[in-house]
Formats: sequence, C-alpha cells, structure tokens
Amino acid sequence: MATAANRSLKARARRIRLLLMDVDGVLTDGRIYLQSLPDGSAVEMKAFHAFDGAGLKLARAAGIRTGLITGRDSAATERRAREVGMDFVLQKQAEKLPAYERIVRAAGVHEEEVAYIGDDLPDLPVLARAGLAVAVANAAPEVKRAAHYVTQRAGGAGAVREVVELILKAQGKWQAAVRSARA
Amino acid sequence: MATAANRSLKARARRIRLLLMDVDGVLTDGRIYLQSLPDGSAVEMKAFHAFDGAGLKLARAAGIRTGLITGRDSAATERRAREVGMDFVLQKQAEKLPAYERIVRAAGVHEEEVAYIGDDLPDLPVLARAGLAVAVANAAPEVKRAAHYVTQRAGGAGAVREVVELILKAQGKWQAAVRSARA
Amino acid sequence: MATAANRSLKARARRIRLLLMDVDGVLTDGRIYLQSLPDGSAVEMKAFHAFDGAGLKLARAAGIRTGLITGRDSAATERRAREVGMDFVLQKQAEKLPAYERIVRAAGVHEEEVAYIGDDLPDLPVLARAGLAVAVANAAPEVKRAAHYVTQRAGGAGAVREVVELILKAQGKWQAAVRSARA
Amino acid sequence: MATAANRSLKARARRIRLLLMDVDGVLTDGRIYLQSLPDGSAVEMKAFHAFDGAGLKLARAAGIRTGLITGRDSAATERRAREVGMDFVLQKQAEKLPAYERIVRAAGVHEEEVAYIGDDLPDLPVLARAGLAVAVANAAPEVKRAAHYVTQRAGGAGAVREVVELILKAQGKWQAAVRSARA
Repeated sequence: MATAANRSLKARARRIRLLLMDVDGVLTDGRIYLQSLPDGSAVEMKAFHAFDGAGLKLARAAGIRTGLITGRDSAATERRAREVGMDFVLQKQAEKLPAYERIVRAAGVHEEEVAYIGDDLPDLPVLARAGLAVAVANAAPEVKRAAHYVTQRAGGAGAVREVVELILKAQGKWQAAVRSARA
Repeated sequence: MATAANRSLKARARRIRLLLMDVDGVLTDGRIYLQSLPDGSAVEMKAFHAFDGAGLKLARAAGIRTGLITGRDSAATERRAREVGMDFVLQKQAEKLPAYERIVRAAGVHEEEVAYIGDDLPDLPVLARAGLAVAVANAAPEVKRAAHYVTQRAGGAGAVREVVELILKAQGKWQAAVRSARA
Repeated sequence: MATAANRSLKARARRIRLLLMDVDGVLTDGRIYLQSLPDGSAVEMKAFHAFDGAGLKLARAAGIRTGLITGRDSAATERRAREVGMDFVLQKQAEKLPAYERIVRAAGVHEEEVAYIGDDLPDLPVLARAGLAVAVANAAPEVKRAAHYVTQRAGGAGAVREVVELILKAQGKWQAAVRSARA
Repeated sequence: MATAANRSLKARARRIRLLLMDVDGVLTDGRIYLQSLPDGSAVEMKAFHAFDGAGLKLARAAGIRTGLITGRDSAATERRAREVGMDFVLQKQAEKLPAYERIVRAAGVHEEEVAYIGDDLPDLPVLARAGLAVAVANAAPEVKRAAHYVTQRAGGAGAVREVVELILKAQGKWQAAVRSARA
C-alpha cells in the first residue's frame, strides 16, 4: 500500500479534463492485420475493444474530452474515433509532441489537466509532459518507468476503460456514470 | 460448496424457456475488428465461436427459444443469428430494457422463464429483471455482482454454450441433446 | 507413466494410413470470423496455423493421406485444404458418419488404419469408429472421454501437427521427415 | 547465470550487420487467416505487431540491414516489409538456403555477421549457417535446439523486437536508439 503514491495518483487524476492516447498497443493489442486483396494490394485491419468504447463514452458523458495521436493512417481508426465520440483525431504524425501541443492549445487546458496513455518509445516525450502519464500493461520497460500509472489490463483488452474508471472515480463521478449507463 | 445457492441456481435454470443475450463481449470476446477499405471507409468484423453456435442449436432443439439485444448494428451479427436459428434479433437498441420487454411480450413467457447473459453496464437493467441473470467471466465487476451465475468460460470462447448446458442439465435434457447431436 | 496405455496408443498410431479431421476447433481455434460487407451481407474468415500446414505436408510426404469433414461450407477451408495437399475435402455434411464411410471406402483402407481428430459432439460417431480417435485440448468433455489421445496443443495452435508427429514417430518416419523438411 | 554462454551470445550479437527472418510464426504468431470472398475465392490475412515494426525501424536507423525469406507469397507481407523499410524480401522460396545465400552475397557480409530468426523445420539449414541463430519462444523443439538464443516473446508478439534490442545493446547502440525514437 504505497499510500503516498496513491494519494498523488488520485490528485493527478482529479485534475484531468482531456484524455489523449496512442492507438496501436493502447486502443489495440498492437496487432496490425494486413489483408491481401485480389489486385495485389493490401488493406489494414485493427481490433478495438467494446469495453474501451463504452469507457470513452462514459468519459465524454462526464465532461472529459478525448483524442488520439498516431503515426499510422487508417480508415479503421478514423471510424472507431468517430463511433466513440472522440474530439481530437491526429493520424500520420511522425512526431507526437507537436501534435500533442496542438491539441492542448486547441482544447484550452493546462498540461496538468491532460492524461496520456502510451506503450512504446515514441510516446516518451508526451508522457514526460502530461499531468497523468499512463503506460499499458504491455508497454515497453522504458515507457513503464516513465509513467505515473501502469494499467492492469493490456492494450486492446480494456486498458483505456481502466484509465477512464480511475479518473472518474478520483473525480467522484463513477457512480453517476454507472447509473447513466444503466438508464 | 454453496449447496443452497446451487439449489437456487438449478431452480432458476429449470424454469427457462427463453435465452437472451448481448453480443459484444458475450457472443464475442469484445473485440471489434474494423477493416479499412481502399475507398477510405471501414467495415466491421466479429469473431463468434463454434461451441456457442452448437450450443444454441442444442437449446433450440430442446425447445428453448433464443435471441440477442445489442446497441450496435452489424451484418455479421445478423448472419450469425440466422445461422444458429435465433428467434429474436434486435440490433441498434440504444436502451436494452424496452427491447427486452418487447421480446418477452412477443414470446409470451413470464420473466422468471427468461435467462439473460451480459458483460457490461448497459446490461444491468435487464439482468435485474431476468429470472436467470448471467455474467460472463470477462464481465465488468458491477455486472458480476448483479448476476445469479458467472460463467467459467469467457465471452466468445464458449460462455454461451456453458449456459445452455447449465439450463439443459437442470431440465434433465442434456443427455438427450448429446444423443441427438451425435445422430 | 501409463506404459500399457502408451504402448496401445503407439500400436494404434503405427497402423494409420489415413488422417481425417473436423475443421472448426481442430484446424482452427473455433472462432468463426464474420465480416460485414458494404452491401449488407457478411463473409466468413478462418484462422489456420502454419505448424498444422507444415505437419500435413510432412504426413503426405510420408505416405499418409489426409482429409476433412465439416458441417460448414467455406471457400477459406477449400483453399487451405488445397494448399496443404489434402486428398479428401467434404464440406456441408449435416452428418459426419456417412461422409466418413464414403472417404474410407474411396481410400480403400480399413477403419483401424484411420485416425480422426474432433472437438465437439457431432464428432462422436466418427470417433467411436476410427482406429485412432483424437480429441484436441479444447474439446468438449464428452469428446475427450471418447478419445484414445487428447492433444496438448489446442486446435488452431498446432494440435494437428502434434498428431502427425505422434503418427510418424510411431511409424519410425519422423527423423526422415525432419531431414526432408530441411532439404 | 550461464556467464560463458552470455558472453558468447553477446560476442555473436556484436558482429551482426544483417538481420534475416522467416515470416509465419516469427513476424506473426503462425496464424494464417483466410477470408472467403463472395465469388468463391479466398484471400489471406496476416497479423503483424507494432512492436516488431518499431524494432525493425530502430535496427535500420542503427545501420543494420533487414530482410525476410518465406515459402508463401502474400501481398500483406510485401506491404509490411515495405512499411518497416526491409532491404531484402524473398517470398515464394521453396527452399530457404539458396535464398539466404543470395541475400548474403548481395549484402556483401560474412555469415558471422548475419542473424536469422526461425520457428520451424525449413529454417534449420539457415540456422546452421547464420552467425546468430535465433528461435522464437513458439518454435518447434528441433529449431530451439539448433539456436544460439531462444526469445522470451512469441512470434507476432514482439520476438523480433527482442532480437533487435539484444543486438543493439550488444553493440552499445540501444541508448542512442531510444533517444532517437523519442525525438
């Protein structure tokens, strides 16, 4: 029971108004499915999780804005972001920090009000800046060391939902979210 | 050995004439696969399980009607429901309780004759009403607490088959089902 | 160390000249992927395993004929059977026993020269007849009880390769198979 | 702590200038997804991993050339190889040794400067030649016995990334790679 650490984590979570994340390995388990087409080209598929989708809708209903930053470019990601009501969708970002800064400015929040969830080395510069830095259970060791919190669930298997729950509980909004999800 | 609980579970299962369920996380493991198409749109894929399909056919052969209620809308789900001979298929239901009530009325059964299998918060209102409320192994904690029975197998990996077996065994119909499946 | 059982298993494996199997849950892990298409229909996908494909080619090279019997109908299965050089491909078989009998007659072998790998209730009548009855690790309990051998690997994750290895080792052909695979 | 073995492994890794690998079971978990199309044909899908992709880019940035040798032929593999900047892509190779020799000649390296990652019997002849022979965690026993190193991660789940890290750490280039990935 690292009570001081818990208290500090809760204090960080209590301030969050914007929840940002990477895609591959965070909203998915990192698998990049490529399907060969008869014409010799290939299209991409990604596996998202229903728990994360429901969690992101709960966050939104509780007034937390959400968004993603990814180096890849995928119609699947675009559709998923739309389905779960994301506010900021930045794909094809060779570097994540400038994209992060652009979103923070557009959202008009302070950096201590931003949570970011990552899994690999390119996420490190953003994790060093966000008020609540989260690594998924399957993250690279360097990323886990840079995080304030490491999720118990893996990316693509509910890790994002776990972070939403952490934030809403710290903010005293979880019970209301459960009630509204039931309605 | 919670004998009283077992007896009560068996009593609940003995009455079931209608087996309803959610789709994502129950008939699947919760993964929502989205495939990018060359035209920039994306289509959805779901992973069902052969064990569940065989189980649902056994239920039907034993005189139990079956159905599903889901918030999403998917041609894959439509086809799977048809393949396994489901009687009630309600997709695109923002709220599950009205859909549940409509099915119960159409089926002409009492609520204690209905089993419902769920995994997440939107299933809670229906679980509070069904005669046999089941949570899959991978359900949210709130859902497990609301259930009379938590499956050992996860959604998309035989959880529905496990419930069919539980019901048919309680009704003394399992041996006949095995014999007919062999024929 | 059930030495007598091992000896009997080896004796059964030594006689095998024809290796038959179910598809879903045996050559796959039981998942039936259905993809929604833009026109509102849905197409099926299956996940086979490279180890099983290599194993089936080793069996063929060692003079064992192979085949499958399934209740479903799938272009994916057809293509996979062709890729691994299967001799008998019977899809859309509502009952497996007549299909099994037809293959055995066409192959001109005795039933004690046939191995069959299954996972679920419809496989029981064939398992009761084949000289070597195998259940995969993920088979239903009724199927495991009916089998002479239960694989350590699950269906879709190398179970079929494990059976090929068991047979070729019993027949003293495994070392030659490894050498030829290297060549 | 097999210190001598570790020292020898590190010595082998220090020399590597070319990293070659098999595809199915190494860059994927061995699953070969086949999707039925409405016209009765079937197309193939493979599941690669984001960690491996990032690792292969790190290797390239550190001056290590990369390539693959596979018996199958797949547009998905072609696209993935291009995405991660591979230098040598040889598909449809019935035998791996001639392909390996061709790449080594084209790259102008000595065999002790080549690492090869494999999982199954056809990889054995190449593993017997490469300066650093690696088997993935899910490799056949014969392949593990032939390897200087067996990865902790399975194919398709970061095994290739683990080998890149092993090589770059032995060469004292890992810290610089992490820094450049952050930039």
